Amino acid sequence: MKEIIIAGFGGSLRKGSFNRMLLGAASNLMPEGSRLEIAEIYDIPLFNQDLEEDIPASVAEFKRKISMADGVLISTPEYNYSVPGVLKNVIDWGSRPYGQSCFDGKPVALVSSGGRLGGARAQYSLRQSFVFLNMRPVNMPEVFISSPADKFDEKGNLKDDEAVKTMKALLQQLVNACRQ
Amino acid sequence: MKEIIIAGFGGSLRKGSFNRMLLGAASNLMPEGSRLEIAEIYDIPLFNQDLEEDIPASVAEFKRKISMADGVLISTPEYNYSVPGVLKNVIDWGSRPYGQSCFDGKPVALVSSGGRLGGARAQYSLRQSFVFLNMRPVNMPEVFISSPADKFDEKGNLKDDEAVKTMKALLQQLVNACRQ
Amino acid sequence: MKEIIIAGFGGSLRKGSFNRMLLGAASNLMPEGSRLEIAEIYDIPLFNQDLEEDIPASVAEFKRKISMADGVLISTPEYNYSVPGVLKNVIDWGSRPYGQSCFDGKPVALVSSGGRLGGARAQYSLRQSFVFLNMRPVNMPEVFISSPADKFDEKGNLKDDEAVKTMKALLQQLVNACRQ
Amino acid sequence: MKEIIIAGFGGSLRKGSFNRMLLGAASNLMPEGSRLEIAEIYDIPLFNQDLEEDIPASVAEFKRKISMADGVLISTPEYNYSVPGVLKNVIDWGSRPYGQSCFDGKPVALVSSGGRLGGARAQYSLRQSFVFLNMRPVNMPEVFISSPADKFDEKGNLKDDEAVKTMKALLQQLVNACRQ
Repeated sequence: MKEIIIAGFGGSLRKGSFNRMLLGAASNLMPEGSRLEIAEIYDIPLFNQDLEEDIPASVAEFKRKISMADGVLISTPEYNYSVPGVLKNVIDWGSRPYGQSCFDGKPVALVSSGGRLGGARAQYSLRQSFVFLNMRPVNMPEVFISSPADKFDEKGNLKDDEAVKTMKALLQQLVNACRQ
Repeated sequence: MKEIIIAGFGGSLRKGSFNRMLLGAASNLMPEGSRLEIAEIYDIPLFNQDLEEDIPASVAEFKRKISMADGVLISTPEYNYSVPGVLKNVIDWGSRPYGQSCFDGKPVALVSSGGRLGGARAQYSLRQSFVFLNMRPVNMPEVFISSPADKFDEKGNLKDDEAVKTMKALLQQLVNACRQ
Repeated sequence: MKEIIIAGFGGSLRKGSFNRMLLGAASNLMPEGSRLEIAEIYDIPLFNQDLEEDIPASVAEFKRKISMADGVLISTPEYNYSVPGVLKNVIDWGSRPYGQSCFDGKPVALVSSGGRLGGARAQYSLRQSFVFLNMRPVNMPEVFISSPADKFDEKGNLKDDEAVKTMKALLQQLVNACRQ
Repeated sequence: MKEIIIAGFGGSLRKGSFNRMLLGAASNLMPEGSRLEIAEIYDIPLFNQDLEEDIPASVAEFKRKISMADGVLISTPEYNYSVPGVLKNVIDWGSRPYGQSCFDGKPVALVSSGGRLGGARAQYSLRQSFVFLNMRPVNMPEVFISSPADKFDEKGNLKDDEAVKTMKALLQQLVNACRQ
C-alpha cells in the first residue's frame, strides 16, 4: 500500500506556539503507512496580488510541499474569534493565482488550541473557506484543545490521554480520506 | 456639535485595490460634521506574539489613529470566502496586547467589494470578531459592491448611484452611533 | 428610575428542558429595577407565510409580549450545531409580516446550554440573524453552560457559582443597554 | 449502472413557494441514471424530544425516504439571514434519536432562492450543521437564485438559462458523489 503523505502547517509565528507543538505531536501519532511533512510558513510575506505572477521563493516552496502531499493538516490558534491573519495569509497565497491553487480537491483535517472553546471558532471559519478552496474536510472527530499549557509536558509532548486518542482518530480519518 | 472622526482602513496591499477606492469614496461621502482619516496598513508586518510587548512603529501609529477616532470604517475584499489574511493581521495587531486593544467599545461599519456576493462572507466573519473585540457594528444598510470594476470611473470615483446612496446611508448610521 | 422589562423565551418544547430552567434562573438573578417576563412558545405553530396576514392568537400574544418589553433574553439549546428549528420558527413568526417585526431595535442577550461547547454555535447563528432583525446584542460576557445536568439542583435552581456570576453580569449588561 | 436515488425536500410550507418550484425543476434536470424523490414535510410537527422515542408517522415516513436514498438535495429559502425554522425543524427530527439519524454519511447538495444574496446565508448555516450530521456536501457550483419571481414561468418551470445550467452541474456533482 502506497505511503500517504500529509502536509501540515500551523498559524503562529511565535516560539513556543502550542499549535506548532500540536503539529509535532501529530507527527508522532500518524497511522502506519503515512507520515507528516511540515510546510514551514516563517518566511512567507504578506500577500499582495501585484506579486502573484512572480511569487516569492518561500511561497513557491510552500505550494510545492502542499501540492505533492495527499492531504493537509492545519493546526490553528484562534485570534479574535476567527483564524489568525498569519494563517489566513498563507492560505490566500496558496490559493493563488486563480486556477493554480495548491489546495484544490485535497482532503483536510483541523486541530486547534486556545481560547475558551479550544479554537472552535477558527475551525468553522476555515471550513467555510474550504468550500471555495474545494477541499474535502474530515467531519469528525473535532480536536479542540482548551488550556493547552496543561496538556503538553516540558518537552512539548502531548501528555493528555483524551487528546492523544482523539488526535489519533482524526489522523486515521484523514488518511482514510486520502486512500479513497 | 463636536466633529466626529472616523478612522478607515482597508484589507489589500495591491495598487489599484477597489477597497482602497471605496475608502476614498467614503471620504467624499461623509456626513456634515464628520470626516474620515485613513489609517495606513502598508508597513504593518506579520503578527508575532513574541513582539507584542515592543510593537513596531507602524503598528503603534495604526493603533494611535484608531484610538483617537470616534468610530471605525473597514473596507474589505473577500478572499476564499472570508477576511483576507492581510486585513485580519492588522486587526490581530490592533487587539493586542490583552487589555490594550484599540478597538474596544468603538462603533464600526463595513463596506466590501468583490466575489460573487460583493464581499458578504468577509463581512459576516468580521462581525463575529466584533463580539470578542467588543465593538458596536452598524446593522444596516449593508454595502456589498459586486462587479466593482463597473462601479468606479477611471479616476477611482464611485459612479454607481445606488452604491453612493447606500454608502451615504451607512456612513450616516455610523456617525449617529458615534454621537450616542 | 423606570423599571426595565425583559421578555425571555426559550427554544425547546420538552419538559425538563435545561433552557427553560435557565430562564427560571434568570428571573431570580435580574438586577434591581428590572424583571423578566416569560413569553411562552408552546402553542406557536409552524410558520407559514400564507397565514401571516391573519396570525394565530398564540403568535399575536408572543409578539405583544416582546413588543412591550425593553429588551429580550433568549435561552437556546444547540441542535445540529445551530439554533433549534423550534426556536428559529418563533423568531421567523416574530419578524413577520415585513415591517411589523416585534424585535426591531431591541437590545438582546443570549444564554445557552448543551453540546460540547455549551451552545456556542447556536449563539453565533442567532447573532447573524440579529443583523437582519436590527437588534442590539450584548457582546460580553457570553454564557455557555456545558454539562447542564451538573449545574442545576433537583428543584431546577442554578447551583454553579461561576454560572450564576456570569449570568448576573450578562443580565446587568442587558439592562444597561436598555437604559441607554 | 445502478440508478441513483436522490431524496429532496424544501423548507417552506406556503403554496407557491419558490423552493418547492426549485425541487420540481430539479426533478426535470436530473442526470441520466438518476431520479429525484420528494420527501414531503407538510405534516411534520414541531420537534419535541419527549416524543422522539415514539415518533409521529409523518416523521417516520420522512426518515424512511431519506434513509433509502443515495443522496440528499435540500432547497431552502432564507429567513432572517439563516435557515427557516420550518426546515431546521425537519432536520432536527431526522437527526434523532441519537445514533438513528437518517442523514449520516450521505452526500448532500443545496439550492436556495430569495433574499438579496439568493439564500447564501441559509446555505452556510446548513453547511455547519452538516459537520455534526456527518454529511458530505458538494462544494461547487453553488446555486443561489436571486429574484426568483423572474426566473420561473407561469407553470413553475425554471426559464433562466444560467440557473438551469448551474443546477444541472450541481446535480451531476451530487450524483457523482453518490457513485463514489
